[in-house]
Amino acid sequence: MADENKGVVYMGPGTVEVQSTDYPGFMLKDGPGVHPDSVGREAHHGVILRVVSTNICGSDQHMVRGRTTAPEGLILGHEITGEVIERGRDVEFINEGDLVSVPFNIACGRCRACKERNTGVCLTTNPSRPGAAYGYVDMGGWVGGQARYVMVPYADFNCLRFPDKDQAMEKILDLTMLSDIFPTGYHGCVTAGVTTGTTVYIAGAGPVGLAAAFAAQLLGAAAVIVGDLIPERLEQARSFGCETIDVSRGDPKDQIEQILGEPEVDCAVDAVGFEARGHGEAAKEERPATVLNSLMDVTRAAGRLGIPGLYVTGDPGARDDAAKEGSLSIRIGLGWAKSHVFTTGQCPVMKYHRGLMQAILQDRAPIGRAVNATVIPLEDAPQGYRDFDRGAAKKFVLNPHGLIPA
Amino acid sequence: MADENKGVVYMGPGTVEVQSTDYPGFMLKDGPGVHPDSVGREAHHGVILRVVSTNICGSDQHMVRGRTTAPEGLILGHEITGEVIERGRDVEFINEGDLVSVPFNIACGRCRACKERNTGVCLTTNPSRPGAAYGYVDMGGWVGGQARYVMVPYADFNCLRFPDKDQAMEKILDLTMLSDIFPTGYHGCVTAGVTTGTTVYIAGAGPVGLAAAFAAQLLGAAAVIVGDLIPERLEQARSFGCETIDVSRGDPKDQIEQILGEPEVDCAVDAVGFEARGHGEAAKEERPATVLNSLMDVTRAAGRLGIPGLYVTGDPGARDDAAKEGSLSIRIGLGWAKSHVFTTGQCPVMKYHRGLMQAILQDRAPIGRAVNATVIPLEDAPQGYRDFDRGAAKKFVLNPHGLIPA
Amino acid sequence: MADENKGVVYMGPGTVEVQSTDYPGFMLKDGPGVHPDSVGREAHHGVILRVVSTNICGSDQHMVRGRTTAPEGLILGHEITGEVIERGRDVEFINEGDLVSVPFNIACGRCRACKERNTGVCLTTNPSRPGAAYGYVDMGGWVGGQARYVMVPYADFNCLRFPDKDQAMEKILDLTMLSDIFPTGYHGCVTAGVTTGTTVYIAGAGPVGLAAAFAAQLLGAAAVIVGDLIPERLEQARSFGCETIDVSRGDPKDQIEQILGEPEVDCAVDAVGFEARGHGEAAKEERPATVLNSLMDVTRAAGRLGIPGLYVTGDPGARDDAAKEGSLSIRIGLGWAKSHVFTTGQCPVMKYHRGLMQAILQDRAPIGRAVNATVIPLEDAPQGYRDFDRGAAKKFVLNPHGLIPA
Amino acid sequence: MADENKGVVYMGPGTVEVQSTDYPGFMLKDGPGVHPDSVGREAHHGVILRVVSTNICGSDQHMVRGRTTAPEGLILGHEITGEVIERGRDVEFINEGDLVSVPFNIACGRCRACKERNTGVCLTTNPSRPGAAYGYVDMGGWVGGQARYVMVPYADFNCLRFPDKDQAMEKILDLTMLSDIFPTGYHGCVTAGVTTGTTVYIAGAGPVGLAAAFAAQLLGAAAVIVGDLIPERLEQARSFGCETIDVSRGDPKDQIEQILGEPEVDCAVDAVGFEARGHGEAAKEERPATVLNSLMDVTRAAGRLGIPGLYVTGDPGARDDAAKEGSLSIRIGLGWAKSHVFTTGQCPVMKYHRGLMQAILQDRAPIGRAVNATVIPLEDAPQGYRDFDRGAAKKFVLNPHGLIPA
Repeated sequence: MADENKGVVYMGPGTVEVQSTDYPGFMLKDGPGVHPDSVGREAHHGVILRVVSTNICGSDQHMVRGRTTAPEGLILGHEITGEVIERGRDVEFINEGDLVSVPFNIACGRCRACKERNTGVCLTTNPSRPGAAYGYVDMGGWVGGQARYVMVPYADFNCLRFPDKDQAMEKILDLTMLSDIFPTGYHGCVTAGVTTGTTVYIAGAGPVGLAAAFAAQLLGAAAVIVGDLIPERLEQARSFGCETIDVSRGDPKDQIEQILGEPEVDCAVDAVGFEARGHGEAAKEERPATVLNSLMDVTRAAGRLGIPGLYVTGDPGARDDAAKEGSLSIRIGLGWAKSHVFTTGQCPVMKYHRGLMQAILQDRAPIGRAVNATVIPLEDAPQGYRDFDRGAAKKFVLNPHGLIPA
Repeated sequence: MADENKGVVYMGPGTVEVQSTDYPGFMLKDGPGVHPDSVGREAHHGVILRVVSTNICGSDQHMVRGRTTAPEGLILGHEITGEVIERGRDVEFINEGDLVSVPFNIACGRCRACKERNTGVCLTTNPSRPGAAYGYVDMGGWVGGQARYVMVPYADFNCLRFPDKDQAMEKILDLTMLSDIFPTGYHGCVTAGVTTGTTVYIAGAGPVGLAAAFAAQLLGAAAVIVGDLIPERLEQARSFGCETIDVSRGDPKDQIEQILGEPEVDCAVDAVGFEARGHGEAAKEERPATVLNSLMDVTRAAGRLGIPGLYVTGDPGARDDAAKEGSLSIRIGLGWAKSHVFTTGQCPVMKYHRGLMQAILQDRAPIGRAVNATVIPLEDAPQGYRDFDRGAAKKFVLNPHGLIPA
Repeated sequence: MADENKGVVYMGPGTVEVQSTDYPGFMLKDGPGVHPDSVGREAHHGVILRVVSTNICGSDQHMVRGRTTAPEGLILGHEITGEVIERGRDVEFINEGDLVSVPFNIACGRCRACKERNTGVCLTTNPSRPGAAYGYVDMGGWVGGQARYVMVPYADFNCLRFPDKDQAMEKILDLTMLSDIFPTGYHGCVTAGVTTGTTVYIAGAGPVGLAAAFAAQLLGAAAVIVGDLIPERLEQARSFGCETIDVSRGDPKDQIEQILGEPEVDCAVDAVGFEARGHGEAAKEERPATVLNSLMDVTRAAGRLGIPGLYVTGDPGARDDAAKEGSLSIRIGLGWAKSHVFTTGQCPVMKYHRGLMQAILQDRAPIGRAVNATVIPLEDAPQGYRDFDRGAAKKFVLNPHGLIPA
Repeated sequence: MADENKGVVYMGPGTVEVQSTDYPGFMLKDGPGVHPDSVGREAHHGVILRVVSTNICGSDQHMVRGRTTAPEGLILGHEITGEVIERGRDVEFINEGDLVSVPFNIACGRCRACKERNTGVCLTTNPSRPGAAYGYVDMGGWVGGQARYVMVPYADFNCLRFPDKDQAMEKILDLTMLSDIFPTGYHGCVTAGVTTGTTVYIAGAGPVGLAAAFAAQLLGAAAVIVGDLIPERLEQARSFGCETIDVSRGDPKDQIEQILGEPEVDCAVDAVGFEARGHGEAAKEERPATVLNSLMDVTRAAGRLGIPGLYVTGDPGARDDAAKEGSLSIRIGLGWAKSHVFTTGQCPVMKYHRGLMQAILQDRAPIGRAVNATVIPLEDAPQGYRDFDRGAAKKFVLNPHGLIPA
């Protein structure tokens, strides 16, 4: 049996706190953001995890900045790796003691979407709309995993077991990225069409952007160019062999031409999303369509755009009414003239996590170093959120039980 | 040798005329819309066709309505079927006497885009940008085919030979659709993911919309729902088994629910493009993003949108500055939440025309009847343009040599 | 609660009987062909069905003819449609009263293979090797469904619910084909690359061959040519618009040339498998590699071969030692010279059954008529097996509860 | 203008010589292996190359060993990189002075196969059957390129221009592999389904096997295991990070288990072909089906097999009558039980060479070192053939003009 639980709680715009929370069980209880229809839903298909590592994500920041309708009291955290300490009566293939990675998408494995591998839009785990996640606004009210313990439903389906625990703990800073950003960056690249010899532009050098850049290399890209405004993040990108563009200095197209000798890339990934800023002079202001429009500009005809960067249906903090409901002024005529293909949405992590795990375990994919995984105690989560919000080129990994060695 | 040439000439907004024009040769000459770099370009890889049939297209209407920067004097027409009467010295596999269908995209067959089957964005046939077509603004300045004779470059690559001329002439009203709208509608469906058992919503019941609806049936769709404002066009859609929605009566979502018992379809095709009108009350006004936003609304999560409907980079007739340069207010947050995939651009006809030809020749695809192919003499083209602009549920097929039997 | 159970039992080569059998429960019991490791396995994820329809399959014939190592006492039947009358405690989305189609492949929905949509080779439902099925030798020892009642494990994953029971009962002779032969024939065509305008040769006009031929039409094939030795079956193929070839009259290549004007098709499907006979004079003898070698001969370069026809790892009745262990003399050099692609194995039904169901329910796919669905009482199963073995052009549908109207 | 021509000539089993040969022109002349229909065929679409590098290929060895019906007097060589010194009148985009890689498949770019990217089975360049190549038996009679000069037809389509000649010459030992073995090995891996995290077994450590192993790494494979009989070749495989298996010591399955902890890989590549030897004790004898049967044994269910290794339609040197016509005893029942997919045939080089070129030019793909590229003068070709036949772990690159620096 386990000791008391603690988790990172959203207290309102700008503030998170580590608080004592309920120890999880195999039934959904009422709480912040929990849909009434979910209260009392049983989950004997679930397991309880002792959380070994759980990361702070850029999409958590959208909530903490007050750019969403997240309810106060929400326990955050959807990037979860942990050890099974208890399993529900219906679990058959995951066992106590297993060390597992948990996709941020909560999927039942039984609906049409899951059967078609679209686990990012599972039809049964969120009464409000397709798609669920842990500790996230509008994603079904499941309790977040920036905590000591968390319940993972449909464990046979959702959990990815590491074959050897000792080996896994040695690579835990890589494996912890399997729950979200490594597959997310990889998905961005795959849907953009990155393959051997491709030139690719990645907008954004936050953790997802860096993961996309790293994934692009893994997929064999000939040139990976990363754009951002923050020098420290660009330096991080250069640390593993990327070319970089400081978009505060002007349009990426010119800088791409300087790097490649031509102003276009084969394909592009948007790892920024709706809180984008402008380019050049406009970099001081939010310009939510800047990245999308710029990617159409720099991508060659018949190229593809992968868009893992988040665009929302409601943004109370937006500057105009259209943006408040997720409408942006997009230069669709340009994309159309170039026959572009746009792939949006959350990454269905399960499509990719097994292969990426194998690559990590066989020493082919040091993703932790690429995104600058930085371990901090659970208690320091508030400071981690602040540092990350200020643009630190770090991916913060919380260590709730002190199991990650220094 | 051949007699005098005549063609349909764009005379300025609202007006076309049939005029005498030059007999074509194997060299590009100066003329309306011809890029200076193209003047003098040799085309010994080309053939001269006696045009057997050539259709009026909705995209011609954009020009004739003055919604583009098309130059006066342009000879129109990019939907061409004809008989080879002369071949350039470098043509090897197409012979005099062959009856051929010509894709509207002019492609060299030698550049990277063509080798990758993206013939809609050929890199060499238009000095201004990727992609070329006959008789079309900004598409390379190639002389149009709504004429008695026309030159088709890179004939070995571009021409699709019909195996038996007599058999082909019997089905000419079907085969004439291979140059553009049948593949275009089919491409819309393929990129939307239509397959056996799919439910699909087609926005627009003009010829491309009808062709898409017909293609959806051919691909095995379980339900094909077509939306438009014009009763006559909706009736045409019903004539071959489609369900229909009158979007002037309100939002398609409600009507889809009435038809299917649920408010969403598996996927959708935009066969309208930038001259879209609103829905319900707003149907009287141009609302260029209406179709795209509506398709995101009615398409299920993880669905795909095929967008063969034209969006332009410059629209001098648009109502606001953003739209004048092809920027529309798109509800991208909604599409993102549903993980939609958007495929834009001109159909690369060559990917599809051979298979569609086989289906026609084996009596599997009476596309001519579905789009209501209506034969008129070349001289009546001005009347055809007017009737089509008023919303006639007809696909006008010009008959320059009277070769199509009554 | 339900009455006594009865099922079709394999009594040894050449004989089946209808006998009383155990009423199913949510635990695997010892019995003919049940792996010791499976005895006692709990299945609270399962449902009990009142079987509405269950079909005799050609692959059942392999067992009954004594061409496999099937144990006596095995209850046969893997093509199951039924009504849920009891559900295990862990079933969440399937309810009592639901009318469902059951894929013949038993899949857990939780292993790597299932997550990757390869439900035909599920890793957990058969202790002997990947892939399980009901009532089939070496397929995990699950009790067959040619019975009044049957247990379906992992019901949330495996069952396909029909949206409306009354509507479904009207089309039950079509829907009953969803459990195996319709998806199997369709899979053969899809993996062969059949699409709009394709010419395809189907070897075999038994139920799978006819289903493949029908699927090819649904996929838009321009010409569907079916070969067999039995006139009655070829007539059945012609009844829905196929071209036919009597392979006892000689090599298919010549007859294909007579039909198409050229001796090759775009692609081919093997719906015969290892009990193939020769062509022409050799039609009297078993020649197990005849079909594969012939398909390479008649398929054009770069074509694909779909091989749903069964090839086995052990055939005690084969004529030579190599064939006894599943080795055949295959003209691989010919296939290689033509760059052929070969797709083998059991159809993963779940990939296809939902779309095919939608096509049936929307009146697009009268598969029952194409395969000549013929309803007989459960008690007449022995006669059905005999008639089918003699080459009747019928697909026998058992009606254990008399629920199928005359 | 150019000086006298010389080439490597097949003199009969076991012997090649360097002899003076005709300087090439833009018309096909009679000669060894030239089909009568080809004599006099004009090729104004061609260019003449000064050959910079041209490699000896394992498939050349099949001919030189007398295992084919190659005619004496044939000028060998299909792996060609060179500089354009003259161009035919119809060439438009390739210019004199360009340094280009030439795919070994000769393709017209105008037939159905070429338009569908199946350039390995071009329908027009070989009167005998689909598919043509330089200097190869039954492949159309085109003069080989192990020579000082060679004519490349359809140059705009076939030639891949290097963007910068000086840069290219620095990497010429990598780029010279683009004409055949790098794309061929890569094609084997792609068709086998190698991607991030895959475990793959490559049968054969000759140059194609090594190229496949290198390609597997480039594609992100987690583990690449190479099997062969020759210690020197296995050592070469280990030199760039592969695991290896000596198949003379027994069945690969056991050794795979030792390496991976499980006896199966995700997928496999056959880089051996019809001259395979047995495993273990049988390694002294030719056993042409050994590799195929072994790959089915070691590949997991639902895995794929890429088969770039050559299987022939006629093998006069085979040990039995079946093998003489390309029929082998294949354990198809095993593959079928595992739902394997088999992709055979020559690599369509054009699908891959541009991306692989980009990877080389951006320092991502040192293929030359992986296959141990070894430069020798044209005059030493006979010695190169002998050394290669004895199993040297070298890829011999002929240097006809001494342009490759030491």
